[in-house]
Amino acid sequence: MSDRIHHAGLRAKVMSAEDATQFIHNGDRVGVSGFTGSGYPKAMPTAIAERSKAEREKGNEYKISLFTGASTAPDCDGVLAEAGALNMRSPYQSDPTMRKAINNDELQYVDVHLSHSAQQIQAGFFGNLDVAIVEACSIDAEGNIVPSSSVGNSVEYLDSADRIIIEVNEWQSEELNGMADIWRMPQAPNRVAIPIQDPGDRIGKTYIDIDLDKVVAVVETNAPDRNAPFKPLDETSKKIAGYFLDLLESEVRAGRLSYDKFIMQSGVGNVPNAVMAGLLDSKFENIKSYTEVIQDGMINLIDAGKMSVASATAFSLSPEYAAKMNREAGNYAKEIVLRPQQISNHPEVIRRTALVASNGMIEADIYGHINSTNVCGSRMMNGIGGSGDFARNAGLSTFISPSTAKGGAISAIVPFCSHVDHTEHDTMVVITEYGYADLRGLSPKQRAKKMISIAHPDYRPLLEEYFDRAVSKCGKTAHEPHDLSTALSFHERFLETKTMLK
Amino acid sequence: MSDRIHHAGLRAKVMSAEDATQFIHNGDRVGVSGFTGSGYPKAMPTAIAERSKAEREKGNEYKISLFTGASTAPDCDGVLAEAGALNMRSPYQSDPTMRKAINNDELQYVDVHLSHSAQQIQAGFFGNLDVAIVEACSIDAEGNIVPSSSVGNSVEYLDSADRIIIEVNEWQSEELNGMADIWRMPQAPNRVAIPIQDPGDRIGKTYIDIDLDKVVAVVETNAPDRNAPFKPLDETSKKIAGYFLDLLESEVRAGRLSYDKFIMQSGVGNVPNAVMAGLLDSKFENIKSYTEVIQDGMINLIDAGKMSVASATAFSLSPEYAAKMNREAGNYAKEIVLRPQQISNHPEVIRRTALVASNGMIEADIYGHINSTNVCGSRMMNGIGGSGDFARNAGLSTFISPSTAKGGAISAIVPFCSHVDHTEHDTMVVITEYGYADLRGLSPKQRAKKMISIAHPDYRPLLEEYFDRAVSKCGKTAHEPHDLSTALSFHERFLETKTMLK
Repeated sequence: MSDRIHHAGLRAKVMSAEDATQFIHNGDRVGVSGFTGSGYPKAMPTAIAERSKAEREKGNEYKISLFTGASTAPDCDGVLAEAGALNMRSPYQSDPTMRKAINNDELQYVDVHLSHSAQQIQAGFFGNLDVAIVEACSIDAEGNIVPSSSVGNSVEYLDSADRIIIEVNEWQSEELNGMADIWRMPQAPNRVAIPIQDPGDRIGKTYIDIDLDKVVAVVETNAPDRNAPFKPLDETSKKIAGYFLDLLESEVRAGRLSYDKFIMQSGVGNVPNAVMAGLLDSKFENIKSYTEVIQDGMINLIDAGKMSVASATAFSLSPEYAAKMNREAGNYAKEIVLRPQQISNHPEVIRRTALVASNGMIEADIYGHINSTNVCGSRMMNGIGGSGDFARNAGLSTFISPSTAKGGAISAIVPFCSHVDHTEHDTMVVITEYGYADLRGLSPKQRAKKMISIAHPDYRPLLEEYFDRAVSKCGKTAHEPHDLSTALSFHERFLETKTMLK
Repeated sequence: MSDRIHHAGLRAKVMSAEDATQFIHNGDRVGVSGFTGSGYPKAMPTAIAERSKAEREKGNEYKISLFTGASTAPDCDGVLAEAGALNMRSPYQSDPTMRKAINNDELQYVDVHLSHSAQQIQAGFFGNLDVAIVEACSIDAEGNIVPSSSVGNSVEYLDSADRIIIEVNEWQSEELNGMADIWRMPQAPNRVAIPIQDPGDRIGKTYIDIDLDKVVAVVETNAPDRNAPFKPLDETSKKIAGYFLDLLESEVRAGRLSYDKFIMQSGVGNVPNAVMAGLLDSKFENIKSYTEVIQDGMINLIDAGKMSVASATAFSLSPEYAAKMNREAGNYAKEIVLRPQQISNHPEVIRRTALVASNGMIEADIYGHINSTNVCGSRMMNGIGGSGDFARNAGLSTFISPSTAKGGAISAIVPFCSHVDHTEHDTMVVITEYGYADLRGLSPKQRAKKMISIAHPDYRPLLEEYFDRAVSKCGKTAHEPHDLSTALSFHERFLETKTMLK
């Protein structure tokens, strides 16, 4: 038995994942740890999936509703979707099998701001939470959970659920112990100010204290987090990152940013990693992040002495960097803080820090509305995640994307977004490899000119043509001119001809 | 001379509004007090408008950019728009002449979340602020401004502007002195937690201290705030209010709300007033509001002993109630707090209070996206105002509207919003006179059924037809099914045939 379970009562509850499914009933709502492929339970999802398939063969239904921190991995979201073991899923996913099942109407997906999900569960918007399954790197002598590589919604799920199953994963470094900062927001009407002034402030405990009477099973595992490797930096990503750094420099010139102690939030992906590579060679020092996930680039910045604090709710590292963190976690105890996602993404703290936010997008329209979730208005990609939490409350908010996708067949700049996740009121700057469109303080018609200038050159004439037609069709009765009969023509053309180009 | 100017140096600066225009130059950016027809400057706008016309006749341009708290009145927004005296306008307006000028492309309108506007001005997103014009009910012996019937963005405009003009309005009750709670958020990177725990907490001073060296003129006025009278309560408003109260009752049953001390935010209009009339006869006691404006219904609730705190940034009273407040302001000093709009609308405090929000809308789509601003996607009505601040951060957020407008020619429930100001991620409950659609915890397809059920019966078959077609056209590849070729067909039909009905 693992020497990581230091509480005798909980040692007595160790059983196989298969056996532990006895505590999970058909129709249960199950909240699990896990955020961007880190710290999700490794054994129970497969056990539930297997049981679901076995019960189906016997003519019984065995399905659960699954709540996580955010995305997980093939051995959690993937196996459950593959098995058809889910009634519903919230608040975020990015697994190919899960995505297909969602768009195929095999389950209900509820796409929620990541800062909202815990409080909505606690308020009962989704009904009673039956089970919490949380991965730990260890259990201490008092029975407290030391979280593994993510915190996510674990605290609130453990507090809300009727029954608790703990997975103790020996693969996770025991040196993660100390990184978590567990602080509970009292529930309404007793909420209080969050006492975080600086991204590095620690306000809670390093472990999660739980109601031991609710623990029904402890499962031992030894399995890695599964994150996708990043692709090598391509030219487009480097160009976009270059414009992002130009923007930062111009903010310094405007007196809104300092080379010392600027605070950043960053979505996940190649462009953010290119930005962080760029920051390595920049004049910025003592950079702090108040963000969702720790990425490879932040580790490099810490190693180079350029980043002094990385506050997040989880790791999102490539396999190579995850292995490094597993070996060297102790070296990062000072710089890295892992918080509940309700706190890492809380509007209160984000607004207080006045951070610079950077998030990806599917498309933007000429007036600055942003589609982050549904391709051609209908097909779910991943979800809104934390982009709304950060974009609305940042001191400076950017959305970034290559100007085209699918080899030029899709333009990231369109006349009218086929789905809106962030409105013109929240979008400050949009960046492609053709430059940045600074929309701050501008009216819609002024914004349109800037947005068209960062579209791919092949699409600029089509966008200008649309804008001119919209202005002319509306006559002089339009603040934000649209020609509704062709507003969605780029998307319609793509659905018909596989390209948005004429 | 007015006996309300208790500072000798400022008494020496009294002059006519006409003379004071010498301090306002062509191209200046001017920030004024005023929020929903309360506390805006009464003399300077007309003087600026007159000078603009006179200069034009001489072949000179004389135009300013105008920043306010929110909407003003005909003798501010109206006269300036009529005179063509504006280059741009932000963050909110609701004046018919101004609206026409905006849609007619005579000026640039930048529609901004009301909690964001002050910080964006201070950060320089709009350039340097040249002049602040603020209405006072008096000036004390130290030269501090006692604000009149609104606070709005006055503090930040006074802090940011190069030059200050104060209008002292004898019409305003001197008993307003004491209602204001002036607290400054330090600018980034020194922002701090806002020490408000309860809507009634007073955290600042009752006056605005200013840099006296910046005061270039003091203008005396004696003119009323101009608010529109409310219409008598109609049956539709009463029905919507009834469903809102049903929702509150169901929240009490779910354990999420108590009859004691529930906190409300309310947009302006007939339905909110019907809601407040309903609350008069309800079981709710010690109601508190943390909202933008004090409306007639709140005064009735205070008078009846049902409301113990009304925190806002301004009054928005009918002429009858404004006259009453003018006579009896001293009686409301305990219950009413007027804060800077950055604080009345701040996400941090809104989220902390977990208030119940209620805002109007132009239209909602079947998946719960909300259009609050642009009719048929292009024609600006008023602006987003504070609806985004409250809807995103409320504990329970509702959007309310009669199911139809223009005698049934326009449906408030459409297949696809022609403009999106609030996304499906922020919309919890939508209410019409046909009931409430509780969208919490539901996937898009589940939401569509609820939304169609609260549409006007004449439109339900058209909406069902659309939904079925969208599902069938997307096949099994859609999380949020749309048929892009007919998504905007309701609006296109209205533009062509003057009705959304077939």
